Amino acid sequence: MRNVWGESLQISIFGESHGEGAGIVIGGLPAGFALDFDALKAEMARRAPGKDGLSTTRKEPDDAEILSGLFDGKTTGAPLCAFIRNTDTRSRDYEPMLPRPGHADYAAFLKYAGHADYRGGGHFSGRLTAPLVFAGAVAKQLLRKENIEIYGKIGSIYNIEDETADMKSFIEAAGKPFPVYSDARGEEMKAAILAAKNQGDSVGGVIECAVVGVPGGLGEPFFSSVESRLSSMLFSIPAVKGVEFGGGFALAGMKGSKANDAMTAEGGKIRFLSNHNGGVTGGITTGEPIRFSVAVKPTPSIAKRQKTVDLTNNEAAEITVKGRHDPCIVPRAVPVVEAAAAICILDLCMMGK
Amino acid sequence: MRNVWGESLQISIFGESHGEGAGIVIGGLPAGFALDFDALKAEMARRAPGKDGLSTTRKEPDDAEILSGLFDGKTTGAPLCAFIRNTDTRSRDYEPMLPRPGHADYAAFLKYAGHADYRGGGHFSGRLTAPLVFAGAVAKQLLRKENIEIYGKIGSIYNIEDETADMKSFIEAAGKPFPVYSDARGEEMKAAILAAKNQGDSVGGVIECAVVGVPGGLGEPFFSSVESRLSSMLFSIPAVKGVEFGGGFALAGMKGSKANDAMTAEGGKIRFLSNHNGGVTGGITTGEPIRFSVAVKPTPSIAKRQKTVDLTNNEAAEITVKGRHDPCIVPRAVPVVEAAAAICILDLCMMGK
Amino acid sequence: MRNVWGESLQISIFGESHGEGAGIVIGGLPAGFALDFDALKAEMARRAPGKDGLSTTRKEPDDAEILSGLFDGKTTGAPLCAFIRNTDTRSRDYEPMLPRPGHADYAAFLKYAGHADYRGGGHFSGRLTAPLVFAGAVAKQLLRKENIEIYGKIGSIYNIEDETADMKSFIEAAGKPFPVYSDARGEEMKAAILAAKNQGDSVGGVIECAVVGVPGGLGEPFFSSVESRLSSMLFSIPAVKGVEFGGGFALAGMKGSKANDAMTAEGGKIRFLSNHNGGVTGGITTGEPIRFSVAVKPTPSIAKRQKTVDLTNNEAAEITVKGRHDPCIVPRAVPVVEAAAAICILDLCMMGK
Amino acid sequence: MRNVWGESLQISIFGESHGEGAGIVIGGLPAGFALDFDALKAEMARRAPGKDGLSTTRKEPDDAEILSGLFDGKTTGAPLCAFIRNTDTRSRDYEPMLPRPGHADYAAFLKYAGHADYRGGGHFSGRLTAPLVFAGAVAKQLLRKENIEIYGKIGSIYNIEDETADMKSFIEAAGKPFPVYSDARGEEMKAAILAAKNQGDSVGGVIECAVVGVPGGLGEPFFSSVESRLSSMLFSIPAVKGVEFGGGFALAGMKGSKANDAMTAEGGKIRFLSNHNGGVTGGITTGEPIRFSVAVKPTPSIAKRQKTVDLTNNEAAEITVKGRHDPCIVPRAVPVVEAAAAICILDLCMMGK
Repeated sequence: MRNVWGESLQISIFGESHGEGAGIVIGGLPAGFALDFDALKAEMARRAPGKDGLSTTRKEPDDAEILSGLFDGKTTGAPLCAFIRNTDTRSRDYEPMLPRPGHADYAAFLKYAGHADYRGGGHFSGRLTAPLVFAGAVAKQLLRKENIEIYGKIGSIYNIEDETADMKSFIEAAGKPFPVYSDARGEEMKAAILAAKNQGDSVGGVIECAVVGVPGGLGEPFFSSVESRLSSMLFSIPAVKGVEFGGGFALAGMKGSKANDAMTAEGGKIRFLSNHNGGVTGGITTGEPIRFSVAVKPTPSIAKRQKTVDLTNNEAAEITVKGRHDPCIVPRAVPVVEAAAAICILDLCMMGK
Repeated sequence: MRNVWGESLQISIFGESHGEGAGIVIGGLPAGFALDFDALKAEMARRAPGKDGLSTTRKEPDDAEILSGLFDGKTTGAPLCAFIRNTDTRSRDYEPMLPRPGHADYAAFLKYAGHADYRGGGHFSGRLTAPLVFAGAVAKQLLRKENIEIYGKIGSIYNIEDETADMKSFIEAAGKPFPVYSDARGEEMKAAILAAKNQGDSVGGVIECAVVGVPGGLGEPFFSSVESRLSSMLFSIPAVKGVEFGGGFALAGMKGSKANDAMTAEGGKIRFLSNHNGGVTGGITTGEPIRFSVAVKPTPSIAKRQKTVDLTNNEAAEITVKGRHDPCIVPRAVPVVEAAAAICILDLCMMGK
Repeated sequence: MRNVWGESLQISIFGESHGEGAGIVIGGLPAGFALDFDALKAEMARRAPGKDGLSTTRKEPDDAEILSGLFDGKTTGAPLCAFIRNTDTRSRDYEPMLPRPGHADYAAFLKYAGHADYRGGGHFSGRLTAPLVFAGAVAKQLLRKENIEIYGKIGSIYNIEDETADMKSFIEAAGKPFPVYSDARGEEMKAAILAAKNQGDSVGGVIECAVVGVPGGLGEPFFSSVESRLSSMLFSIPAVKGVEFGGGFALAGMKGSKANDAMTAEGGKIRFLSNHNGGVTGGITTGEPIRFSVAVKPTPSIAKRQKTVDLTNNEAAEITVKGRHDPCIVPRAVPVVEAAAAICILDLCMMGK
Repeated sequence: MRNVWGESLQISIFGESHGEGAGIVIGGLPAGFALDFDALKAEMARRAPGKDGLSTTRKEPDDAEILSGLFDGKTTGAPLCAFIRNTDTRSRDYEPMLPRPGHADYAAFLKYAGHADYRGGGHFSGRLTAPLVFAGAVAKQLLRKENIEIYGKIGSIYNIEDETADMKSFIEAAGKPFPVYSDARGEEMKAAILAAKNQGDSVGGVIECAVVGVPGGLGEPFFSSVESRLSSMLFSIPAVKGVEFGGGFALAGMKGSKANDAMTAEGGKIRFLSNHNGGVTGGITTGEPIRFSVAVKPTPSIAKRQKTVDLTNNEAAEITVKGRHDPCIVPRAVPVVEAAAAICILDLCMMGK
């Protein structure tokens, strides 16, 4: 399966940055579920660009047209297809034979022998995360019925870290337009983004996520471990270059006596004394919150002049990337990471123990 | 697919730590390939325990019996099944109702409603990496024919890092029994492992990997990105809690102007000026070495007394983990990580552009 | 995988009879292939209704809008999505709580707990074969490049059989609007259809198919046998209730000495002396034409009064099916069967030996 | 997926006729199920050869060794691997370069470029149905808990048909060593088999199957229709060349008013007045018994001299097939067809509505 993901729930993604639009087919949804369209729109709006000086000036309403699978506002059990038309595209900004450093351009040129739709990255564009957020928003609504909530927040931008990543900080950050626990750190982050923008540069960051309410016993040993499933989905998001669970890379420097999450019981109720394993051991959920972090690289599109090659004659060349771009996509990527998690967790729940 | 992984190449894994043994079925292998049995044995020996004071004293020859798919020493194109019998097991060391902290025990108890084979972690045991190394060793031989080489080395153990991770360091480390570039650092690492052992504790570390010779254009956008495929396989390995590509989490703190790998061309030959993207952009290989790192948590089995619960009555309890265990599995996990990479890269090569 | 089919080529289907329309996402297409739009339209027209008194009077142009995957008239390698809007729907003809005998209505009611889109069968409608024919038309163009041709024809309608099913008859029948070798028999078939129509009844038939030019060695033993792959796709077509390869059920009454296709060689060229195995032995193509037949049941929608149940109160009831329907769908199903075969054969070719 | 089948339940098959043996890995089984080993053995014995003059004289106990997934006689939830060693093989009977007509030999030669294990058909052998019957026997035990029963019987051998195929006939035939309703017809069938044997020839037949107790609402529209799933599994069985559901090919000659299964209700209980659709409409179960028939071609191995080619020099040649073979595999194939159905129905049940 290439453009398809999922076992019990299945998504097929399609579309381009500067073509007709981007869409998704979601198979395996339960029948009779009344979609909350306002919540869907709100979720799409969180990802949509153009709200402040921190993101691209490309403005699109991101209204998803539902092409199938819905009847009288409820899911029918048949595949649900949503399509988001492109409306504000400027294709003249792109040059096919000058691959933009850090982008998929050169790899796509090799893969598709020069036939990829190069405009705005084509199928590789971050634009494709719009249908992903749509599917994630549907998944979130279904998970909420089971009291499963997904919280994403900014962990760091450039060299500025949020104050804390304890569970309380997620809940506080969740409602904010710039989702970070410490507003003071948030202001520093914004300043760093604008500074990069003014330098014709960009910055990346880390997104932290917590999934609360997942029952224990989900996932499978080895190839369908919760970490395997989640990471395969998270690394689908453009610009994600690292994924870690619980303590993650920091675990490598811990001793076992600390990294092992001891357990205790009170009144017959079992609980863990720490969550360094991020709610997953042996690939299976423990019932603790699933915790993971995602590294997002700086936006590859920068205004600075960069070295590249002219693929017409395989000669060294330079490029100044035009188009309208985010100096930092981390804030807009938070709902994308949440969406990816929601799709994956719903699939795991549907697969069952 | 749960216990099965792969698209063009497919592996099904089975077995237990203290049952009959552990095995793997490999489907999709090309026909007529003469297996190099000495190389297979050497690879199995790299993972096998019991060579020095750094690992478990459980001693098993790890001889794989090939049950199918081979005729006159060559692959037939039919599924190849290899099985490694358990010979040195001490099942009396395990208590079913006292989950060992950091292990899969409690999650497995929830998942299988108390019916999991608890002895030595059963199906969740690191013992299952033996068939994985077998499959990886077969994959490596096939990749070598295409001039693709996979190099793994220790990046760090506990708080001691190797000196460098440049390409040269991989090649030097590859041949060593303790695969690290700097032997001085290697000695420090060994001392840290023994110190942990003496404290009844354990340590983790980071494994670095480079895959050289992979052609550009492999992988798919989104769900079958090279990062998605590799991470889903790498997170199948017990104890892996983080995976990053190229600069990984460090990219989150870089500016775009640095993180973007600029390109140049000389004499019609294109090359990259850096490899912060780890040989993958947009989920597709660029032709540069694929670079990734894997965080390995400290061995959960430690001699120290730990808090747990008695699942018979859901009361707090304590456990002293018996059995024979590695104070640090990182050195033995290097060939496992290489094997996982080999399986995945071979599958990507077979899927083609 | 539920609404998705394929290994190297992948299709996801969606849509409803009386909703927005019906569509398909095709993943895995090679890049740079120039679609022949006239040929696509011609293929869609073969399936489209309303051409004569033999089919439903519902008239829709079946113009597919391509939503993704195409750039400058060529495939890009990214998923191609085609969508066919519904334009001529009369939803008032359908009653949700009176399942039409022979239709999916009752089964869908059970499956989706009453939430299925019941209008015109919803997602179960033959309307969904329009996107299937689209995908098949694309596949046919790609197969033609490899000199693989797919020929479908009417084998029988009701109790009237075509004169012959030898290879020549396929080629002759292929170009005809009513694709049967013997025009005399064709007239009898048409008369039988009209007679059924006048009785408020319907008839079924058999469709025969030959795939010429497929190289030997495709398919896999057991679960991905050519017969397994083809049948799983063919039984996806609504109303198909039987699939047989080569001699099929007639082989059950033959002796081995006849059923075995003897071989000979002349001038170093191997050929078979018969093709009772339909071009497939052991699940693998032999290089002979792949031959199969498909049983199509009579259209379940008939004007005659029928016994059913009222699902509101689980009481016996009667129904007179309204709506506009084909008294025999066999002629229109010929291009659907060809399309299904084309998709499957292309996937097998892409999977390779 | 090539040598793997299933969604929620997954089976991987491996092995050869004259190699070490044949085996199967079954993933996705529920934990804590106590296997009835006597029932397993009885099922294996039904398929095993050598009981009378009607089958091959090759005698093997078909004792399955369980390599994983079982603990204290119960399933653990981890993959269950069963392996059946070959004990009575005579490899000298086979000539690699003279493909036996009707067998997979020539197709396998093309596919694997001459590297297939040719001895006794290698991986293509009917011997591989032994692990399939094992997996089916496990599936049957799990289905029986849900009151789902699978009945297979001989429908015809050569030109002799059983008297009837009504539901009662299945139950009567089920317990017999030669599973046919009419013992008189059974004697004629046996005589036909022996007559073919004496002529150095072979005969085929039809196997009929009924699955009783399956709840309505299973299966998916289109690609995972019950017919698609079952046929893909049934066509995996060597020698199966046709599959039909309910009335099957006979439906092609019926009128809609007969083929449509009318419904009625008494006392709030819905029932069908006929079952021409074989318990499936729109690809979804209706709750009626699933009925299907399978065409089995005559055993390709016959003692008569046959025309073939010598693949060493691509010249015409003749072959007299040695080895020990069944003049008719239909009786032994009955439990294989039941097993295939059991695996598929269990998977559908586990996938749920």
